This record gives sequence, C-alpha cells and structure tokens, in this order.
Amino acid sequence: MSPTYVLIHGSWHTGADWAEVVTALATHGITDVHTPTVAGHGVGVPKNVTHNDCVQSIVDYVLEHDLRDVVLVGHSYGGTIVSRLYEELPDRIRRLVYLNAFVLAPNECLNDNTPPVDRAALESLALASADDTISMPFELWRERFIGDADVALAQRTHAGLSPEPAQPWRDRLPLDRFYDTIERVGRSYINCTEDISIPQGEWSWHPRMSQRLRNPRLVQLHGSHETLFTNPTLLAAKIVEAGRD
Amino acid sequence: MSPTYVLIHGSWHTGADWAEVVTALATHGITDVHTPTVAGHGVGVPKNVTHNDCVQSIVDYVLEHDLRDVVLVGHSYGGTIVSRLYEELPDRIRRLVYLNAFVLAPNECLNDNTPPVDRAALESLALASADDTISMPFELWRERFIGDADVALAQRTHAGLSPEPAQPWRDRLPLDRFYDTIERVGRSYINCTEDISIPQGEWSWHPRMSQRLRNPRLVQLHGSHETLFTNPTLLAAKIVEAGRD
Amino acid sequence: MSPTYVLIHGSWHTGADWAEVVTALATHGITDVHTPTVAGHGVGVPKNVTHNDCVQSIVDYVLEHDLRDVVLVGHSYGGTIVSRLYEELPDRIRRLVYLNAFVLAPNECLNDNTPPVDRAALESLALASADDTISMPFELWRERFIGDADVALAQRTHAGLSPEPAQPWRDRLPLDRFYDTIERVGRSYINCTEDISIPQGEWSWHPRMSQRLRNPRLVQLHGSHETLFTNPTLLAAKIVEAGRD
Repeated sequence: MSPTYVLIHGSWHTGADWAEVVTALATHGITDVHTPTVAGHGVGVPKNVTHNDCVQSIVDYVLEHDLRDVVLVGHSYGGTIVSRLYEELPDRIRRLVYLNAFVLAPNECLNDNTPPVDRAALESLALASADDTISMPFELWRERFIGDADVALAQRTHAGLSPEPAQPWRDRLPLDRFYDTIERVGRSYINCTEDISIPQGEWSWHPRMSQRLRNPRLVQLHGSHETLFTNPTLLAAKIVEAGRD
Repeated sequence: MSPTYVLIHGSWHTGADWAEVVTALATHGITDVHTPTVAGHGVGVPKNVTHNDCVQSIVDYVLEHDLRDVVLVGHSYGGTIVSRLYEELPDRIRRLVYLNAFVLAPNECLNDNTPPVDRAALESLALASADDTISMPFELWRERFIGDADVALAQRTHAGLSPEPAQPWRDRLPLDRFYDTIERVGRSYINCTEDISIPQGEWSWHPRMSQRLRNPRLVQLHGSHETLFTNPTLLAAKIVEAGRD
Repeated sequence: MSPTYVLIHGSWHTGADWAEVVTALATHGITDVHTPTVAGHGVGVPKNVTHNDCVQSIVDYVLEHDLRDVVLVGHSYGGTIVSRLYEELPDRIRRLVYLNAFVLAPNECLNDNTPPVDRAALESLALASADDTISMPFELWRERFIGDADVALAQRTHAGLSPEPAQPWRDRLPLDRFYDTIERVGRSYINCTEDISIPQGEWSWHPRMSQRLRNPRLVQLHGSHETLFTNPTLLAAKIVEAGRD
C-alpha cells in the first residue's frame, strides 16, 4: 500500500498554502495527500488556542479520516505538531519529515528556539494585538522568510497570511514519549539552504535542530523558508526523497 | 525608476574585471551599471593610499555622475567601501549587497578579519615589496581564490591582477554611523559556497561576517571567490536576486 | 603527460565499486585509472589485517605497476591510505584528493574520528563477529550512508558490501612525515553536502577534517556518502575539478 502524506503547515499559514506542492506531488504518483489546517490558524476562527488544542485538531483529523501508514511532514512550527502527533498516534505513522521545522528539546517551548531579539519582537507584536496574536510584518516576511521571491510574489503570499496565535509559542512540551521512542520511526530533515527565518550559525535549523532527531536522513535544496511558494516543484521532489522508505 | 548598480571590485582587481558580469546583467534588463576602480588599484597609479583615499575616490565618482537610487555591490575588500559609502552618502543608496565581502566590526581593520597565518603571509609580501604593496602569488590565487577554474583561466586572470596597496588593510574603520543606521537600508549577502579565500569554519564569510549585517537577505551559489571570472552568468542572476527590492 | 588516477575505496567497499565512476571519468578523457582493492577488503580474503598491511598492499600495487604522476583519490577510510601513501611514495604523487575522507590528526586512529555513540555501535558489531569484523547493518547503510538512493538501489548496493576488518580502525598513525611535507603537494577536499555518515556539526567532514589539510581546494556536490553509486557522473566531474593542476 502506498503511503498517505499529511502535510502540516507552519505559523501564519493554513493547509491551503500547500496547493502547488500537492499538485507537484501528484506528478510523482503521490495522490493520497492531506493538508489539514491546525486549530487557531486561518481567518474567521477562534485564536485563543493552546498548543494542545492545535495538536488535538490534527489528531481528530487523522482519526476521523482513519489515516494509517502516514508520512507526516511538518513545516516550521508544524514540526512541533509532528513530534506531538507521533506521541499520540505512533502506530499510524510511517515516517516523520521535518521541513525547516522546529524540533524542540524536552520541556522547551517554541519561543525558546528563536534568538532573543526575534522573540522580543514577536512578543511585542502579540502585546500590541487585541487578541494575543502576531501579525507578520511585510518587511520581515520579504527579507527573512521569502527572500528568494520577487517582490510581487512576496506581496501576494503575504496577503494570504493570517495572524498567528501567540499562546502555542509559549506552551512547553515535555516530549518525553517522543524522545523515548524516536529511534523506532524513520526520520528525515529537509533543509532549505538559504532559509534565514532563524539565523544561520548559533541558532540554525540545521544541524542544531536536525541533530535532535538523532541522525535523520538529510535532504537539502536551495531556497528560503517558503519554498512551498517559491519552488513547489523542487520541494515536492525533495519531500518524495525524504518521505520514501 | 529602475535602480543604478554600482559594482565595487576587491583587492588586486579593478572595475574592468566586472566586464562579463555587466554583460550578463544586461540580459536581465539591468543596463545602468557602473564599475569604477578604487584609488590605488590597477597599474600605473600611485599605491600610497589610505582606506579613506579609497572611499573618497568612489564618493567622488558617485557625486560626479550624480548617481541616485544606487544598489551598491561590493566584492571582498570592496565590502568595506560599501559600508563606508553608506556612511558618506546614505541618501543615494537603495540597497547594500555584499559578495563574499568583508563586513568589519566597529574599529576593526581588514587584517583583523583574516586568520593570523594568512595575515602574516600578506604582511611579509608587503615588506618584501618596494612600495608597500602585496602581489598575489599564483599558487595562492589558483588554490584559494579560483579553485573552480581550469588552470588556463587561473593563469589568464592572474596575469590581469595588480599589486594591492597594504595600508588600507591596516586602517581601522570606526563604522559607528554605519551600525547606527544599518537597519534603515536593505541588505543582502551573496555567499559562494566553495569560497575558501577565507577558510570556512571559524573565520568564514558566512555566517560570521554576514551576521554583522543583522539578518541580511541570503543568496548563495556554487563557486569560488572569483565567480565574476568563473561563472559571471550565474553570478549576475544572483546579483539580481540580491539587489531587487 | 596526463596524470594517472588511483582511486582508493572506503570501508565495506572494494575497488570494483568505482566502476561507474571510471566509466564517467573516461568521458572527460581520463582513461588511466586504477582501482585496487585494499588488503582485508572484499570476500574470500584474510580479514586479520593491520592498517599497515592495508597501506602496504597499495604501495605494492603502485610499485608493481610503476605508477607515477599519480592523482590519488581516497574515499572515507581510504583517506587514511592516501595520507600514508604520500608518506611512503611522495615522489610518485602529483595531487591528494580526499572525498568525504578521514584526515587523521597525528597519532589518532580512525575510531577517534567518529562520535562515541557510533564508535560503540561499530565496536559491538566487531565483538559480535567471529573474525573481528564489522558488517554493515542495512538500516545504518540506508539512512546514514545512502539516503539519496531509492530503496532498491540501497538494497542492491548493500548486498555488494563485505565485512570491514576492525583492527585498522584502532591502529594509531603517527603521520609525522605527512604533516611535515603536506604543503609540498596539491590537496583537494571533495565534500558531499548531504553526507551524514559522520554527523554534520561538531564531527563534520568539512570543515573539521578538510582544514587539517591546510586550506585544500574545496569542491562540493549534492549527495550522500555514496555518490559513487548514486551519482557517479556528477562525482566524476567533481573528481576532475579536484584532481586537475
């Protein structure tokens, strides 16, 4: 049986942002692809969610659709959903794939994994909001997230973002079950080599976060944090390379 | 109005060395490109220049030609000219682009940013010269600067180099105005991933120097320190990516 | 006179594993290529060899075939053979090329250059064997060595591996002659950027081992530790780039 792919988006995004990647995966014969939107994400939804609420929304999705043999792909913030889902539904998961995604150490929160200056900027945006959310400033998006786009694509994709609930970034995750059983499941890390949403060097995605997965298969491609928008064809090929047995 | 590109060459080079890059930029519709030669560089010119003399020569060029809305690109040593020019003419500059270029910390000189063994070798070459200049040894050029060329191209380009005045490498730059206002201007760093003119690791161009620019847009390409000779077409495409809004 | 290439395989391999690289080198006009098998490697041979036995087997090969003007390429473990061969036959060697290969510091052994957890795993495999050899587990091969292959290629190439004698990994090499004369010979390091056979970061092939060669020419390509199987055409092109004057 060919595997089922479940793609978990990052902060400010929804499942719809994977559309071009889904199209490209089909050219590789991968057609059983799910792109649920995490609780609290998108427009017109309650934003006062915890990290557990976010996890539960995807657990519910997987159970409702009775998904098995799942290659679970998480982008950025979505990596924390991947790790927690493996704790909740280990028997339904075939492989974990992190795409420039957070791999938290035990009892850390997402904020612990961003440089202090970025953390302070994001928290001040949350404080300035009416509903404890963080809206993505265009300049940050254009320079740090999607530097490989032309300005038109940067503007168009920025218009599709939605405010990110701040609380899930503060919630600490024990992840004891995750780290106790991590070596029982296949693990891959996809690293976009021009991704500076987290600065390269001391805080880098790779090898700092990737190594927490204990030697995951490494797949790299050129591009920014947002290759799902800037190069969905290449990204899909790399997801295939990362997701296969 | 489309921007004006000003390309600042590195040590041992002159503005003429950008010729193939200029041709390649034209294929991207970028035709307003200036490649002045920094004071003290090239043949038949006085070599007893300071770093300030070098900066002043480019300030004069920009003013004489009344250049505005400038995307300023600096290669290697030329990065220090870029930083200083932004101090002198901030209102004429649209974006700063560093191509495996030095970004000095406050009050450093260029020599502070090279490993001690390389620094000693360069200084001994200056001491051995009649006019306090450093001539590029062929072996250093071939192995450390242009390792991606075949030997014929390495020889041909080496023949076009000229002795580098040593004093600008010793002059310390306060750069207080630069660092006070750096976040007001767009910044990009182009990193050639096989560049070992500065060894990779502890002394590397990226992320060590790039991070001094506070999260510049990152653009990378395969190649040595001398992609302006070895792959001008690809380099031009990357300059476009780095230089656009 | 065009140079003679001698390709030294890594652990678990034999000279026959270079076959597709040899074919690809011929398209670059490089036809004088030797791929001897190191003592103790392959099937049906005595496994109780020391590192010196391994070196001697290649010294003998070079002398028997009276090879001169040799570009010596070593992969992985084969890097230690390259370094020792340069000590034994310096006048016959034109250039040293390391392909994700071990460059030992003075008086180290190969085991010193692998992370403790990997070292313990390999030693326990040796202890479990009847003849002090290490057989490659499929999961280790597939995930850490050849992650860029599909599973069919991973299985086919795994079937061709043979048990690695453990003693050469424990033998310490003085390498005093090597480091005394290293700057007299051309040196290149080829780094496959997705190679995680040694984890990236603290223990990485590049720049940790490459820098011991004192600024070798750097050549990089995408791929795992086993590009000789997964991308022999690209690897051959990079060997040409690394091996030329």
